[in-house]
Amino acid sequence: NSQLKIFSLNSNNPLAQEIAQEMGVELGKSSVKHFSDGEIQISIEESIRGCDVFIVQSTSAPVNEHLMELLIMVDAVKRASARTVNVVMPYYGYARQDRKAKAREPITAKLVANLLETAGATRVIVLDLHAPQIQGFFDILIDHLMAVPLLSDYFKSKGIPGDEIVIVSPDHGGVTRARKMAERLKAPIAIIDKRRPKPNVAEVMNIVGNVDGKVAILIDDIIDTAGTITIGADALRAAGAKEVYACCSHPVLSGPAIERIENSAIKELVVTNTIQLSDEKKSPKITELSVAKLMADAISRVYENKSVSTLFD
Amino acid sequence: NSQLKIFSLNSNNPLAQEIAQEMGVELGKSSVKHFSDGEIQISIEESIRGCDVFIVQSTSAPVNEHLMELLIMVDAVKRASARTVNVVMPYYGYARQDRKAKAREPITAKLVANLLETAGATRVIVLDLHAPQIQGFFDILIDHLMAVPLLSDYFKSKGIPGDEIVIVSPDHGGVTRARKMAERLKAPIAIIDKRRPKPNVAEVMNIVGNVDGKVAILIDDIIDTAGTITIGADALRAAGAKEVYACCSHPVLSGPAIERIENSAIKELVVTNTIQLSDEKKSPKITELSVAKLMADAISRVYENKSVSTLFD
Ligand SMILES: Nc1ncnc2c1ncn2[C@@H]1O[C@H](COP(=O)(O)O)[C@@H](O)[C@H]1O
Ligand SMILES: Nc1ncnc2c1ncn2[C@@H]1O[C@H](COP(=O)(O)O)[C@@H](O)[C@H]1O
Repeated sequence: NSQLKIFSLNSNNPLAQEIAQEMGVELGKSSVKHFSDGEIQISIEESIRGCDVFIVQSTSAPVNEHLMELLIMVDAVKRASARTVNVVMPYYGYARQDRKAKAREPITAKLVANLLETAGATRVIVLDLHAPQIQGFFDILIDHLMAVPLLSDYFKSKGIPGDEIVIVSPDHGGVTRARKMAERLKAPIAIIDKRRPKPNVAEVMNIVGNVDGKVAILIDDIIDTAGTITIGADALRAAGAKEVYACCSHPVLSGPAIERIENSAIKELVVTNTIQLSDEKKSPKITELSVAKLMADAISRVYENKSVSTLFD
Repeated sequence: NSQLKIFSLNSNNPLAQEIAQEMGVELGKSSVKHFSDGEIQISIEESIRGCDVFIVQSTSAPVNEHLMELLIMVDAVKRASARTVNVVMPYYGYARQDRKAKAREPITAKLVANLLETAGATRVIVLDLHAPQIQGFFDILIDHLMAVPLLSDYFKSKGIPGDEIVIVSPDHGGVTRARKMAERLKAPIAIIDKRRPKPNVAEVMNIVGNVDGKVAILIDDIIDTAGTITIGADALRAAGAKEVYACCSHPVLSGPAIERIENSAIKELVVTNTIQLSDEKKSPKITELSVAKLMADAISRVYENKSVSTLFD
């Protein structure tokens, strides 16, 4: 077998370190600096000839910087005669522009897929894509991990009986995800149904399903400005939910997110570390779970040419 | 013929405006904004179906931001059913990593070429690439303009006789460019020959050619931190040059550049506007010449399917 090498770029070094530790290997030696004019200067400081290289990088903010780091690293690794160039993207940015919703819009999720292939990626490992269809944007192999087991286990450990819980999807798009969690917790689901009765009239929150007297757990893939989730939490409380938890795979948490969460009816927000939280984004309400073991298992299985999907059994 | 549309992105709007004015057209309506998390949101606010679209963008600093704007715009224009997607890059960033000088280096100049093609560019118009070989990095058509005529005409207008001038290349790589300028000014050339006599000993500046009593004009493609050019100017004065001018196509002017130029033996630095100078980079020593007419002519000729190379006759 050829040798395994894991490299970290700048978006989430703590996660990359943790992944390497889980696997009992050292991170490869490399550095990302900038020339005086701001152009990225990458150097790989050990031979990777013939190796299976895994590059860990989330395309979180600053997204353009992190994406270019990744593309340039992929180019360098390819030209250094690596056997395979595997891109490990715990968070796949630019995913929400995944279709033309209006005329003349770009489809950035597809553009990013094409750019990665062009740079020389031979395989991609991602976690909870905004839409699972993005897998089909790639012609190279892609492994799609899920945080639902990790999030579900955390809530299971609270010991609340399943029939006192309700798993809530904040919109119709997230129902499949909510159902997966509900199955694991043996709980029912509910859906928040937003409707605008007339143009220029405020949206009305309808809750489909019974939440009265229950512990509601909202689940989404991305929490960005936290508008949807905090308004949803209020609606759940108004409909009689005893307590409201929220969870997501990717804590983007931009703009007013932290303030909104701290002032909301949400008792605890459970997130994963696919995106590194800056110090200003840490909050006593936020619990971080690590995807390191999940990513490490996926990397091992890809390296050993075993099925990754068994990780969800 | 199909319709011509010119769009500007954020790197150099004044130049794009000037190009449109030269051509007697209005810039296409579009905007580049950011979502709350920093992802670029481009919108094209008029139909471009069947049109020949020209997108004006220099990949100057912040280079990753400007490059991603460009790639996303190209994607959007392509998907909006434009007939052709022409990328006008007065300054082509990431050009200096154009070969593997050391093991495991990326070749960013080639990566950028591939990314542009992948996004959907059908043709590229550039000015003074760091190495003319970068033309061969593209499989699509590329037009390569030169600023030498513009810079030469400016110095000609000073009325100094050719035999009182010497055109100086700051290194061996720039001799061809210096020769082109020398021909236009009917002046001789000189070359600054840097040598390190022994390791860890300071470089020695040798001047190949006669500069004594002459007006020396240093010419380079990019002036970045201005180290080379200001040290060169000192060496020219020491060798007896009466006055030292400098000129370049692309005023990157990062880090200590402005301070170095202001404190140097350079009497006047003549640059073009391929890169927009921020207010802190304006200096009484710097004269800006506009490439708008040159770029406008090139766009017209590409649009009318005429030869662009005749612009240099
Ligand atoms: N980075 C972003 N931040 C906020 N909204 C976005 C972002 N990217 C795309 N969008 C918008 O979100 C919509 C898709 O969201 P969704 O319906 O949840 O899949 C798109 O139509 C975009 O208008
Ligand atoms: N943005 C940059 N700023 C400064 N140096 C660079 C930059 N990009 C590449 N280089 C270095 O400049 C060298 C090429 O410069 P040159 O020999 O003038 O073509 C490369 O080998 C790089 O090490």
